[in-house]
Order: sequence, then C-alpha cells, then structure tokens
Amino acid sequence: MVQENRFIEELQRQFAVTKPVITGIGDDGAVIAATGQATVVVTDLLLDGTHFSLDQTDPALIGRKAIAVNLSDLAAMTALPTAAFVSLALPRNLPEGMTHQHLLQRLYQGIGQLSDCWGFTVAGGDTNLWDGKLGVNVCLLGCPLSDRIPLRSGGLPGDRLLVSGSLGGSLNSGRHLSFEPRLELSKWLSEHADVHAMMDISDGLATDLPRLLQASQCGARVGIAQIPIHTDVCQARSEWDRQRAALCDGEDFELLLAVSGSDAERLLSAELPCPLTEIGELTAGHDLLFVHRDGTLITEPLQGWQHDLPSVQ
Amino acid sequence: MVQENRFIEELQRQFAVTKPVITGIGDDGAVIAATGQATVVVTDLLLDGTHFSLDQTDPALIGRKAIAVNLSDLAAMTALPTAAFVSLALPRNLPEGMTHQHLLQRLYQGIGQLSDCWGFTVAGGDTNLWDGKLGVNVCLLGCPLSDRIPLRSGGLPGDRLLVSGSLGGSLNSGRHLSFEPRLELSKWLSEHADVHAMMDISDGLATDLPRLLQASQCGARVGIAQIPIHTDVCQARSEWDRQRAALCDGEDFELLLAVSGSDAERLLSAELPCPLTEIGELTAGHDLLFVHRDGTLITEPLQGWQHDLPSVQ
Repeated sequence: MVQENRFIEELQRQFAVTKPVITGIGDDGAVIAATGQATVVVTDLLLDGTHFSLDQTDPALIGRKAIAVNLSDLAAMTALPTAAFVSLALPRNLPEGMTHQHLLQRLYQGIGQLSDCWGFTVAGGDTNLWDGKLGVNVCLLGCPLSDRIPLRSGGLPGDRLLVSGSLGGSLNSGRHLSFEPRLELSKWLSEHADVHAMMDISDGLATDLPRLLQASQCGARVGIAQIPIHTDVCQARSEWDRQRAALCDGEDFELLLAVSGSDAERLLSAELPCPLTEIGELTAGHDLLFVHRDGTLITEPLQGWQHDLPSVQ
Repeated sequence: MVQENRFIEELQRQFAVTKPVITGIGDDGAVIAATGQATVVVTDLLLDGTHFSLDQTDPALIGRKAIAVNLSDLAAMTALPTAAFVSLALPRNLPEGMTHQHLLQRLYQGIGQLSDCWGFTVAGGDTNLWDGKLGVNVCLLGCPLSDRIPLRSGGLPGDRLLVSGSLGGSLNSGRHLSFEPRLELSKWLSEHADVHAMMDISDGLATDLPRLLQASQCGARVGIAQIPIHTDVCQARSEWDRQRAALCDGEDFELLLAVSGSDAERLLSAELPCPLTEIGELTAGHDLLFVHRDGTLITEPLQGWQHDLPSVQ
C-alpha cells in the first residue's frame, strides 16, 4: 500500500493531459477548454454482484466495461469522448489471491485500453478504501459530432425503427464485458443521416423501446421475426424463446434509432461500420404492438430489465 | 418500490432544466450549452462508514455533504456550479426503521437545498440497488469566475499563506455534515485579488499544504500559533493538542491560498464574506517548517488524513 499522493502521481503518468483538457488529475478539479460546442455528459455506476463479479472477472474487463457502457451512451448522443472521471469504492478485503496492486493495475489497464483507442484521457476521480464491495463510477464528457443531437424524444409516426448489431445472450456469454460501443456507427450516422431519435439498448429492447416511445409520444409496431438475434443466444432453444431473449435479456449496448422511410432505405443499403436492421415502425397513438411473422399479435407481457427502485416522492 | 421509469420522472419534476443545461435527466446523456468559457469538473465519492454513518445520520445531511464537498472543490477553483450528476449505490437492506422512500426523499432534499441555493440543477446520474452499503458519487460541473483559475501550482516564494475560517474538530462535532462551502469568499477573491495558488483543506492542513508546496515547488514557514483553531476543538485540551487538531483533524473544507504580500495586506483588512487569517509564507526550497510562537521549530512529525491506497504501477 502506498499513500494517496503517490497513487495520484502514478495516474498522472498513465493519463497525460490531452486537448481539450487543460488541467487533469491532481488539482482540486479538472479544467476543460471551451470548444465552442455543447458538452454531453453521461454517467454510469457499476457494482460488484450486479454488473460484474469481482471474484470471477479480470479487473481489466471491469475497467473496460465501466468506460464502454458510458461510450455506448455517448454513441446514442452522437458525441465523441473527451474526458473521463473515475470514482472507485475499493474493498479493503479482496477475493483470495487478489492484491490491491493487481486490481488497480488491471482496472486502469482496461480503462486505458479504451481511452487510448478513442483518444480521451482520465482527467480526475476519487478513490476510497472501504469495508464494502467494489463500485466503479464513471462520468464521461463528450463533444457532439453535430449541432443536432438525436434525443429519445424526436421520433415521429411513420419513422422506421432500426437496431444495430444483434440482441440477446449478452450476460450469459460474457459479451457484456467485451462489447464494442457503437461510436463508429454513431459517427457515420451523424454524417450521413437525419436521425430523429436514438438511444442505446442497455435494459433490453422490451424495456428500452417503451422509453423512446414515451419520450416521442408515439406507439410502435415491431415485427418480432425481424429482430436480429445474437449467436450468443442458445440455438437449441425454441424460436419464441430465442426471440424473447433478444427482447428481454438486456446488456446489449446496441443502438435503437428512428429515421424517415427514405433515410431507412438509404441506411439499409449502405456500407456501414456495423449492420443495421429494420424491426418495425413508429405509429400515431401510444400502443406498442409486437407481431408474429403471420401478423398475429403477441399478447404475452414482455419485460426487459427493470431496476426496482423506491419512489422519491 | 416503484420502477426505474417512475423514479426518473420524479427526479425530473424536482430538478428542472436550467441554463446552461439544455437536456437534463431522462435521456442517454445530458447536454450543456456552450458558454464560451472553460468547464471545471470536480468529483467526490462518499461512502457509508468512512464519510458518514447511515444509521446515525439524517440522509438529508448525507445528500447535502455529497454536494457540499464538491462545491468546496469548485470554490478552490473559483468556479460556480452549473450541473450535478449523482450516482447512488443503494443498499437493499437499510438500517432498522428506515425505508427506501425516506432515504431517497431526504437525500434528494439535502441535494436540492444546495442546488436551489446555488442555482444549479441535477442533470443526470445513475441509481442501482445492491447488497452493499450506501455510496454517493457526485460529479459537478462549474463555470469559472475568471480566466485565471488559481491552481495548486501557482505559489511563489515570498507569497503569504492564508486560510479561511478556522480548523479542527469537524468530524467529532458533526460540522463536516453541515459546513458552508466557501463559494462566496471564492467569488469575492476572483473579483478583488490575484490569487497565485489555492486549494481546499479536506484532509487537514498538515496533509494538504505539502500538496500545494509540491505543486508550486516551494517550501513554507508556518507559525503554529497563527493557525485559527475552531471552537469545535475541545477547549480543555492543551494548547499544543488543540493546534495539532487544527493541523491534522481534516474535513475542514476551508480554503488555503497563496497571495503576494501586498494582496495579503489588502485582504486581511477588507470586509470579507468569511474571515481570512495569515498563517505563514512560502519559501524558496522544499522544506515545510512549523514554528512555535518563540521561533523554535516543531520536530514532531505531523500528519493529517492520508488515505492509504495501493500502488497502481
């Protein structure tokens, strides 16, 4: 164990100050230069036992995931990362055989892998030892790629619904620890399409789509057979079981977007950094209908991951 | 317990979108309008058992402290708060007699008290239930009050060292839960002085002053009898014991600053939002000397709060 001052010096060496950051780790706060553009801010807290298991996971993958889930949020806002702030609740007692040095080294290697890849730096944070389990909070700042940031609220009746990649089986396969956030696709979209509404799918399409619909005050009709099912979903399961996994498993970190019919045609025939699939369309009204290939409605209630939380008021 | 969607709606009602925030709680990220000025970012993570005790503390004071410690960092950077991001690791099992609704209501009341007072909003965050204890991370964005942000590194030999308020006894008295962050003073200083270096005292003057000295590559000579001792430090203790409390207790959240001799004279005779006291001066070299009233050196090693942390590399 070393003192806090030394720990901070080591982080300063690993994460050099890079534009637009002017002052990084080691002062009372970081200073980010004015860029003339809006700032996008995303944050996610990952907890041992919920989002990863420290005793079963290389800490590099935990650090990587803590950044990647935030990059996925930035992708949904068509923004590129500029500076990360990493807070660690660090357990005094670690799983057998693991040292604090190993944990921190690997955690920051995982973080550094993505910060190197996307050209941003860690500009601050807070680290505290405690008697609890590992928690990792990342707050990530980003610079929008265009003046028009697609929010969840911009969807219009008649818009086509597209998803990137394929869905389901992320937690069971471990893909949630190694997925590629869709920043390349997001960048492409910001240059080539007029995306009306966009979000990332983190809690499962069945939970996240209703959020986009509520924000856009639309309904939707989704063809269940059109939803791209990830190969991580066991092939031996029934078709309906596999479709339900794609809808409800969560932790996909794919993009869900609403675009006009003509943009949809263009996007579906373009060469993209990551494939898009049309799964349905937005409708006037408030109903979300899932339909089978033969047109029959699915009446079974579908639910992705819903965090049960207490009411505030 | 209610679902996440409902919880977020309640937060949206409590924390309205205010300038420069354009998009607040409820999308994949927040959007903050360009102001033409740099952005200051501070972050602090408070943990149950270290920075508060959930079973002995009104959660409103925990929420308040989580914001106040970050406001103190912004004060040290002469910046005013614009948007907060609050992440909660929420224990599934609470102290006897406490409900989740009560915890969250009070916590956000404490947060709201300071956000109302300082005219900023909560623009995002993340809340997750887990089997661990309560952790509260706040990342706070601020707008600098001038083009010259005083860092820790700007101190010069010959500068006078001043502290705001008085030091010691904060943890024992409970003052650490209710202190006033020195933003008013910070604002005044940004308008009336050329502060060379500044930081907030969170780990005790004996720990924090060496950080300022290292960043400024200076030494210092501090008159131990000049250090203002807080009335929270027990009067019955010996003078040296009380001085040591002022140096080492930590959690003071006062400002420590270095200014030129002429600025010091001006500040010490001005009417300020909070009193400043001169405690010594910066010197060429690297030695930090604490001296008694009679000029004799203190040889006993002094140490404030040092978080023991593992080495990263």
